[in-house]
Amino acid sequence: MALNNSGRGRLRLGAALLMLSTALPFAASADNATPISAPATTTAESNGISSFKLDNGMEVVVIPDHRAPIVTHMVWYKVGSADEPAGKSGIAHFFEHLMFKGTAKHKAGEYAARIAAMGGSENAFTSDDFTAYYQTVPPEALPDMMEYEADRMRNLILTDAVIGPERDVVLEERRMRIETSPEALLSEEVEATLYQNHPYRVPVIGWMHEIEKLNRTDAVAFYDQYYAPNNAILVVAGDVDADHVRALAEKTYGQVRRGPDLPPRLRPQEPEQNTARTVTMTDARVTTPSYSKSWLVPSYNTAEPGEAEALDLLSEILGGGLRSRIYQALVVKSGLASSAGAYFNGSRLDEGSFSVYGAPRGTAKLEEVQQAVDAEIARIATEGVDDQELEAARNRFVRSMIFARDNQSSMANIYGASLATGSTVQEIDEWPERLKKVTAADIQRVAAKYIKAGNAVTGYLLPAEPVQN
Amino acid sequence: MALNNSGRGRLRLGAALLMLSTALPFAASADNATPISAPATTTAESNGISSFKLDNGMEVVVIPDHRAPIVTHMVWYKVGSADEPAGKSGIAHFFEHLMFKGTAKHKAGEYAARIAAMGGSENAFTSDDFTAYYQTVPPEALPDMMEYEADRMRNLILTDAVIGPERDVVLEERRMRIETSPEALLSEEVEATLYQNHPYRVPVIGWMHEIEKLNRTDAVAFYDQYYAPNNAILVVAGDVDADHVRALAEKTYGQVRRGPDLPPRLRPQEPEQNTARTVTMTDARVTTPSYSKSWLVPSYNTAEPGEAEALDLLSEILGGGLRSRIYQALVVKSGLASSAGAYFNGSRLDEGSFSVYGAPRGTAKLEEVQQAVDAEIARIATEGVDDQELEAARNRFVRSMIFARDNQSSMANIYGASLATGSTVQEIDEWPERLKKVTAADIQRVAAKYIKAGNAVTGYLLPAEPVQN
Repeated sequence: MALNNSGRGRLRLGAALLMLSTALPFAASADNATPISAPATTTAESNGISSFKLDNGMEVVVIPDHRAPIVTHMVWYKVGSADEPAGKSGIAHFFEHLMFKGTAKHKAGEYAARIAAMGGSENAFTSDDFTAYYQTVPPEALPDMMEYEADRMRNLILTDAVIGPERDVVLEERRMRIETSPEALLSEEVEATLYQNHPYRVPVIGWMHEIEKLNRTDAVAFYDQYYAPNNAILVVAGDVDADHVRALAEKTYGQVRRGPDLPPRLRPQEPEQNTARTVTMTDARVTTPSYSKSWLVPSYNTAEPGEAEALDLLSEILGGGLRSRIYQALVVKSGLASSAGAYFNGSRLDEGSFSVYGAPRGTAKLEEVQQAVDAEIARIATEGVDDQELEAARNRFVRSMIFARDNQSSMANIYGASLATGSTVQEIDEWPERLKKVTAADIQRVAAKYIKAGNAVTGYLLPAEPVQN
Repeated sequence: MALNNSGRGRLRLGAALLMLSTALPFAASADNATPISAPATTTAESNGISSFKLDNGMEVVVIPDHRAPIVTHMVWYKVGSADEPAGKSGIAHFFEHLMFKGTAKHKAGEYAARIAAMGGSENAFTSDDFTAYYQTVPPEALPDMMEYEADRMRNLILTDAVIGPERDVVLEERRMRIETSPEALLSEEVEATLYQNHPYRVPVIGWMHEIEKLNRTDAVAFYDQYYAPNNAILVVAGDVDADHVRALAEKTYGQVRRGPDLPPRLRPQEPEQNTARTVTMTDARVTTPSYSKSWLVPSYNTAEPGEAEALDLLSEILGGGLRSRIYQALVVKSGLASSAGAYFNGSRLDEGSFSVYGAPRGTAKLEEVQQAVDAEIARIATEGVDDQELEAARNRFVRSMIFARDNQSSMANIYGASLATGSTVQEIDEWPERLKKVTAADIQRVAAKYIKAGNAVTGYLLPAEPVQN
């Protein structure tokens, strides 16, 4: 469940092949927080974290962190690439770029310069389910950032003179990040194969031939539909207090008119899948073969109670790091693999995915790596895990949450991403407790139920060699 | 390019695995016909075939055939499953069913009984690109059929009492035709893998979970958008003359009010594909393994001039029948295969597909069959075909057209399907001439250009055996 932060021009690449980065945790342990659905003008406060709604529908979460004179200011829009109209892939990410163009009050680049001058930073990222903008600045600059962010929520100047050159920037970005990368191209086709009906099939950056056709009409329609306070979440973490943030929010975001009510985010769902699929990319630039194997599994938002937590712990036990079964068996003991592991992408509004991956070391064959990984999966599905192993994995997992919590922007990310993918503040709060309830039997059950033969999608990245038709 | 006629409740299954039926030809040799875009009230006539437009925009084609006192009356709507809203898969086919429900004038079943009583027949079918309704009746019943068809074009009674039970019929149809058939389930997932972005990915009958949710609102919206004379083509073939048909059409269809103008049929197109994919279905009901391998190729509507014709002849030479290379090599000479061949699905509005398929005989292995088929493809791509072989294939191909032309309903089908997928009457007319221009070099070129390693989708249907994760 990596957030797949992307920066302006950065974006998630779906279940990227050989994605090794540690997943950002789903939630932190903010005990006893209250659901954000509390009545407007009421501040719910617990464990120091406050949440409330402005009159125009904008959600606000304030996470005090007084260790240093820094504040992280984020606005999350509940729209991502999976909400795009058919044939308009890339518009969510393209729009993220356009948000850095000017308004009547603030011309393009003005804030970038101002933030840089004060030693701060700003950026943005787009995923399937959300788009977010943030600045990290000294607390005294917060009012200014809020004024700026509230201004561009509705007042962008979207002329053809702005649109055309920025589309070229995005096209170049796609060329650089995707077209020149066999891994990225393979990853796109794996996702397009894994999701047969759901728009998670479509890459966040968009298909080249569709980006090329995005125009001013598309951009304005997208802006008018999705950029409004009632489709946004403000997260402020740092050296501030809730009352101060509320007062500032009411003066800035609170002055933005509520947009039209948005319909529920109902995307086409997956049919039952009955086939095992492979997707093979052969490329001269590849020197070592590698593979990934993915299954559709529930996400935190779609799972039966406890199943997503069990999948998180299954991924940790199976292949979550140096102590995991796959790493120990393939990398440490047999030395078959140079890399191997597992991960669960569960922080999505709709169906998630579970993946394993590996690459052979030395003279080992890719097939041997695959078989050894499959054997580890089968062993958990048939024999389960023991309680000690589960406890150790759970501790490692919770510890990574605590580390994340210790980081101001990670905390802001956790709240924003979770709220934008269907969670409530209460659910974020209760997540460590739910994790504690997962039993060894739960792990075995989700492994046997979801990670089974017959409907996985395996991606192969292979060095070029003569191929037949 | 089979028409994939479906009957009420019948429908195309995409590039069905092991589809052996001879493809229905694209066009017949109606020399010198005039484009249907001739001004309204003008009858274009050539080789006996007339075409004109009613004032409300309905296209009409009349194909006289006086050999017997029979007439084929068809209405084609330029809407198919690829025009459905996302998440509403199956609505085009479901609506085909609803067209047999009653209007205020004619209750459900009235016409079925009347047509049966006169020894006629009626049916309907839905494809990705069109939906068609037809009756074959004595000429004196034609006015009645036209009155009936014009009536249900706008006057269906679509109450929940009608919708609910018919949806159950469609769900049962899906269970019978798809869910119980490993071939059909595999075929669906092969198509969903072959088309990564285009709605041809979605089965015509719809995904089960989406059919289940189709309701009255969906049906009424679909009816109001697509069922109108300006989105329909009337084809009448048989023992009638054009003036008579025109007079009848003006009295019946001509009285139906023109609907709103429809936007161009622009569906999301495919990105560049860079991977070879496999889709494997393992099922206890399967006794002999088999495979199909498909490539995206241009259709008649999207191809560069001459390429679709060359693909048609390539499919004929490679695997179009008993005299084809694949059949002769694998079934007759080596005896490796019990069946093997090739086909081109080119009569589509958007991108088509080219497929080869095979199944081993006796103790032969599926892999041997695949390799032998691949070798035949490679041989054409590298060495080409000789002129004599091309001539023989062209003659066989044209002869099959002539046979089709000799059949009244085939002729009506050819005109309807071609006009509904972007052809003009003139293009249908000139098709045999274009076929004659294809050279041996053209065949080799399209084989090398489109039927290449690295981006095919192979479907495997395998007997059950122990599988690993």
